[in-house]
Amino acid sequence: MKIYHGSIVYSKGIKNLVEYKGSYIVVQDGIVEGIYETLPERYSNVEIIDFGRDVIIPAFTDLHTHAPQYPNRGLAMDEMLVNWLDKYTFPLEEKYKDESFASDVYDAFADDMIAHGTMHAVVFGTIHNKATDILIKAFEKRGIMSYVGKVNMDKNCPDYLLENTEESIDKTELFLQNHIDNKYSKPILTPRFAPTCSFELLTKLGKLMAKYKVGIQTHIVESLWEKEEAKKCFEGCRCDMQIYEDAGLLEYGPTIAAHFIYPSQEDIDILKKHNGIAVQCADATTNVIAGIMPTGLLLDDGVKIGVGSDLSAGQSLGIYSQIASAIRLSKIKSLYEKENRVISFAEAFYLGTKQGEVIFGKVGSFEKGYYFDALVIGGLEDKYQELKPVEVVERFCYAGETKNIKHKFLRGKEI
Amino acid sequence: MKIYHGSIVYSKGIKNLVEYKGSYIVVQDGIVEGIYETLPERYSNVEIIDFGRDVIIPAFTDLHTHAPQYPNRGLAMDEMLVNWLDKYTFPLEEKYKDESFASDVYDAFADDMIAHGTMHAVVFGTIHNKATDILIKAFEKRGIMSYVGKVNMDKNCPDYLLENTEESIDKTELFLQNHIDNKYSKPILTPRFAPTCSFELLTKLGKLMAKYKVGIQTHIVESLWEKEEAKKCFEGCRCDMQIYEDAGLLEYGPTIAAHFIYPSQEDIDILKKHNGIAVQCADATTNVIAGIMPTGLLLDDGVKIGVGSDLSAGQSLGIYSQIASAIRLSKIKSLYEKENRVISFAEAFYLGTKQGEVIFGKVGSFEKGYYFDALVIGGLEDKYQELKPVEVVERFCYAGETKNIKHKFLRGKEI
Repeated sequence: MKIYHGSIVYSKGIKNLVEYKGSYIVVQDGIVEGIYETLPERYSNVEIIDFGRDVIIPAFTDLHTHAPQYPNRGLAMDEMLVNWLDKYTFPLEEKYKDESFASDVYDAFADDMIAHGTMHAVVFGTIHNKATDILIKAFEKRGIMSYVGKVNMDKNCPDYLLENTEESIDKTELFLQNHIDNKYSKPILTPRFAPTCSFELLTKLGKLMAKYKVGIQTHIVESLWEKEEAKKCFEGCRCDMQIYEDAGLLEYGPTIAAHFIYPSQEDIDILKKHNGIAVQCADATTNVIAGIMPTGLLLDDGVKIGVGSDLSAGQSLGIYSQIASAIRLSKIKSLYEKENRVISFAEAFYLGTKQGEVIFGKVGSFEKGYYFDALVIGGLEDKYQELKPVEVVERFCYAGETKNIKHKFLRGKEI
Repeated sequence: MKIYHGSIVYSKGIKNLVEYKGSYIVVQDGIVEGIYETLPERYSNVEIIDFGRDVIIPAFTDLHTHAPQYPNRGLAMDEMLVNWLDKYTFPLEEKYKDESFASDVYDAFADDMIAHGTMHAVVFGTIHNKATDILIKAFEKRGIMSYVGKVNMDKNCPDYLLENTEESIDKTELFLQNHIDNKYSKPILTPRFAPTCSFELLTKLGKLMAKYKVGIQTHIVESLWEKEEAKKCFEGCRCDMQIYEDAGLLEYGPTIAAHFIYPSQEDIDILKKHNGIAVQCADATTNVIAGIMPTGLLLDDGVKIGVGSDLSAGQSLGIYSQIASAIRLSKIKSLYEKENRVISFAEAFYLGTKQGEVIFGKVGSFEKGYYFDALVIGGLEDKYQELKPVEVVERFCYAGETKNIKHKFLRGKEI
């Protein structure tokens, strides 16, 4: 048993961000037992670790990112989407046929993710099995809860990343078999997006889903181009989500729909029906200017939304700054499209923390029974004023740096 | 004389970002003498300070920020403009009647600005003379080139910040007299914005401008509300800039027009006629959702544009991240208003560095004769690939932290 003293902030619900000042959080075997303003007598013999005025918050969850694109973070950011893909992203992804390159990058990627306070992630690999084995092991070894996918593409991409359909399915099945029994880092189906996948590929992936009971991550209505292209590629297609439903790819969860910028009502209904989650990657979708997710409208429609860093369309692994950017983008969206509303800090923080429980179970909050996956943040206060704990957390999300994450705990263990 | 070895990146012109790999920059008495790929024989006896693969870049220039709002950075960011002003910003500004509070905040502010690599700044104070004396001295003492203003407001603001016109003018004249002979940190006229200033106040400020030959900073067409309100407040007014021209407030420079989001062609023409500079504060104007500057259109029309942090509508003093946000916003603007174009990284970097020479003279570049106001940035490379120096700088602007600024030089002296 461990007891930590400090300020404590976490989401109980989407509009219920709670704060405790100078309180105690009791952790038993890595699980939160309770939070107390005054420590009960029964804990009087347990050692207390004191974080003073620093604030204990849940670790973040990153629901969409591309590990292989890590070497390109913060580069070519003034390019537009097509150039960015053809000149930078696809050529980089080819390099993962080299296992030693993959190993170097994926170790750095996993370490940098942890340095940014993220402890649960849903991650794209490349088409390469061995490199993606290395990626999933990098997470497994560190004890990071994750879903990792080997990418499928059997059309509309450069030759050097193109698979034939059978080969793509066989390699995917091998990847699933290799990792289905992992403890922390699980495999997930990862067709890149509708324009690069034949319906045959998708239906065969659907059969793998039924056989192995795994989930799916992909990009859904990520741009106007993608939305239209998907309709052209699949006969009789009404919307992106329908393609995956028809292929049997929404039968098992998790269902992770990255971007979800231009959904039709049918996209929304299908996502909800299968308990899927849409992922907002705020800076990423503006860096490559796909558009802005209608976050407020979707939340009000009951859609579950998480937050993603989406490297390297996104520039950094910090989910905290994407929480801030989500609010900023909701303001821009409301300026240009009046039916959208501004989301609150409480909502945005929930999306980047507790909403992750849909995918990872008891994470992202400090209610009784949740994992103590936690960060201690500090160095954000001023000597001439005192901030409320929630204000410290807001300042961290808007202007924090990795140096402000002073301690990190994974299932109760400091890392 | 000092010689520094490393990679070197700076703007020669708005579309001409140059890079030197493993080169030498020779600095004589704080002034750049030259850059050499091979060091000329005549320097063979001078000690060389080696920064290895780290990159030497010009220090940044912040053309619009509010020092008194520093304690609110990263707070109340999900509020909308009116609430944000009334509940957070104005009540904070009242506190500067307390000199000890002012002294604590302004020291922290100046130090934090330097920590973010900014060495030239144009800064709002409050209506308070003594507090603003403390602010300007905080810059003067540190040798930071700046223009600092005591704010004027004689209408449309809370009672506790309201001045009567005569008092406002007298206090402003006193402020000018106290600081006109400063070496580095100069006074500047600072009517807050048109809706809070009577025409009498502005014309009397115009007379002070003529008498003391000082410039002006204010907010120009910063929001649709402000644009319309200005027209209502001033009889016969066609546009914001005309008000200041009519009041004789554009006779001496510098003329600093913060935000400039909704300019009419006449606003643009008047600004250009007086060699003024518009300032984009990318995150700030989206945080409080005033709108997005038409950066590309203005640049193509020959308008000079600088970059501002605009605390505490902006969340941080890092101009480098506002360079990245300027590009991102130009993409969003081009998505919603097709006549706008995307600005390049070379352009955005120029705006945050060399464009500052309009205000501060030989700063923001490393051409011969420019001050060696410089940063050495590092810790941004990966072990598995080599980046070009320009790529290191782009990654710094997008994903850098203060820890990546490893050395800082002010007029050749390491600080």
